[in-house]
Amino acid sequence: MKGSRESRADSYFSCTDSERAAFEAGIKMGTIYHQFVGVPLSADNVETLEKAIEAGSMVQPFVENVKVRIDRSMLRSKRGQYDYFSLTGDMLDVKMVVKYKTARVKASMRFVKEMNYPLMSIDAVEKAVDK
Amino acid sequence: MKGSRESRADSYFSCTDSERAAFEAGIKMGTIYHQFVGVPLSADNVETLEKAIEAGSMVQPFVENVKVRIDRSMLRSKRGQYDYFSLTGDMLDVKMVVKYKTARVKASMRFVKEMNYPLMSIDAVEKAVDK
Amino acid sequence: MKGSRESRADSYFSCTDSERAAFEAGIKMGTIYHQFVGVPLSADNVETLEKAIEAGSMVQPFVENVKVRIDRSMLRSKRGQYDYFSLTGDMLDVKMVVKYKTARVKASMRFVKEMNYPLMSIDAVEKAVDK
Amino acid sequence: MKGSRESRADSYFSCTDSERAAFEAGIKMGTIYHQFVGVPLSADNVETLEKAIEAGSMVQPFVENVKVRIDRSMLRSKRGQYDYFSLTGDMLDVKMVVKYKTARVKASMRFVKEMNYPLMSIDAVEKAVDK
Repeated sequence: MKGSRESRADSYFSCTDSERAAFEAGIKMGTIYHQFVGVPLSADNVETLEKAIEAGSMVQPFVENVKVRIDRSMLRSKRGQYDYFSLTGDMLDVKMVVKYKTARVKASMRFVKEMNYPLMSIDAVEKAVDK
Repeated sequence: MKGSRESRADSYFSCTDSERAAFEAGIKMGTIYHQFVGVPLSADNVETLEKAIEAGSMVQPFVENVKVRIDRSMLRSKRGQYDYFSLTGDMLDVKMVVKYKTARVKASMRFVKEMNYPLMSIDAVEKAVDK
Repeated sequence: MKGSRESRADSYFSCTDSERAAFEAGIKMGTIYHQFVGVPLSADNVETLEKAIEAGSMVQPFVENVKVRIDRSMLRSKRGQYDYFSLTGDMLDVKMVVKYKTARVKASMRFVKEMNYPLMSIDAVEKAVDK
Repeated sequence: MKGSRESRADSYFSCTDSERAAFEAGIKMGTIYHQFVGVPLSADNVETLEKAIEAGSMVQPFVENVKVRIDRSMLRSKRGQYDYFSLTGDMLDVKMVVKYKTARVKASMRFVKEMNYPLMSIDAVEKAVDK
């Protein structure tokens, strides 16, 4: 049952294991950014949100590990009614490991000041990994 | 400081306390639906996601209480890589209390089968509440 | 058919027409913010996105009219690959009219610099409107 | 200016051109799904939404071409107030071409009934493409 859905998915791909792993890592990075940017955020819920983003990534295919850190430098505990922010891309720091068959991709996201851009990147590709 | 931001916000409104409370409740219901529908979901992260949605609502203005329940009937623990869903509106059951000055609004969201629609509604309005 | 779904919806509400209209307006404001914040944005697609947000609001219940304006002051035509932004709440200027039975609510959203906050508000409530 | 931001981005990557192109394609697929699932949808705004999703993808880095088609089989023109849906992943059909330096990746998304899953896949990888 499990195997049949994964085999069926594989039948749609024409690429190497490492290209597949890179593609899968990109999907998860896009998911984190575009699903969660905008969530109401203060010092009171930042840790809960980090855990929810990590847990959501872990249920997606081929994710071995993920670590999400939200920058707390602008946050404080809520006192007034309007004393909070929305999550923005420049607050996100993510490290993720995706493994597909013989390939493992380490990817990350962080705000690059010189680009004024929340850059998602591939830090390393390992091949000939044990299946 | 706190008071000044809230007073400034008030200066933009032309309505009664109960209309304001109803408006604020609507914003939070729209937030829950449109921010979180699409999150990857299995039995493994459903409770974490419920807590994150509740915590996100609680940092928004004038929310006294919120309870989020995600329908687990289609979920199971993840075994295969594709053994998960995305959160959809029909899985959401929400109860929320919003208080603005003299008015308290109790609102909810639940899937109404006869309408095939995730309906958000006002269950009760209390006026002349102690500020 | 149409009437029966609307009557069924009404049966879930315990409030006045103007409170209902205010609630419905709040839902749509929350929808705009939390659905669309994060969309990739440059001068090349800003008008298309404004139209899509407006069209999405118009299919929701009880919306009579909506006008969405995205601040273009930071945008330019894309030349380099990283020459774009994501939509943020402070770029949004929205005016909306919602009518429910005898009540009409005019609501808006705009960034309030003094609050550093994208404030959603009720500009006017009309009662005893012709059904 | 343009070149310097792209060179800076490149400095964060440790992978081949085709792995980079696959990663970039994955990001865009994740963006489409997780940004737009949930948008209010009827026959009246489906074409506008398709265009907005395409235009949003085209401003992201390295996208050469994208075609988005939303399944209309459940949609109709809005007559009653509740006569609409929200965009779900199973309605999305996407074809995209991403080019990074010497590599071009053709990717797609479509609902696979046998998996009950909106699968994103790599259809082809071209190498030694002219820069």
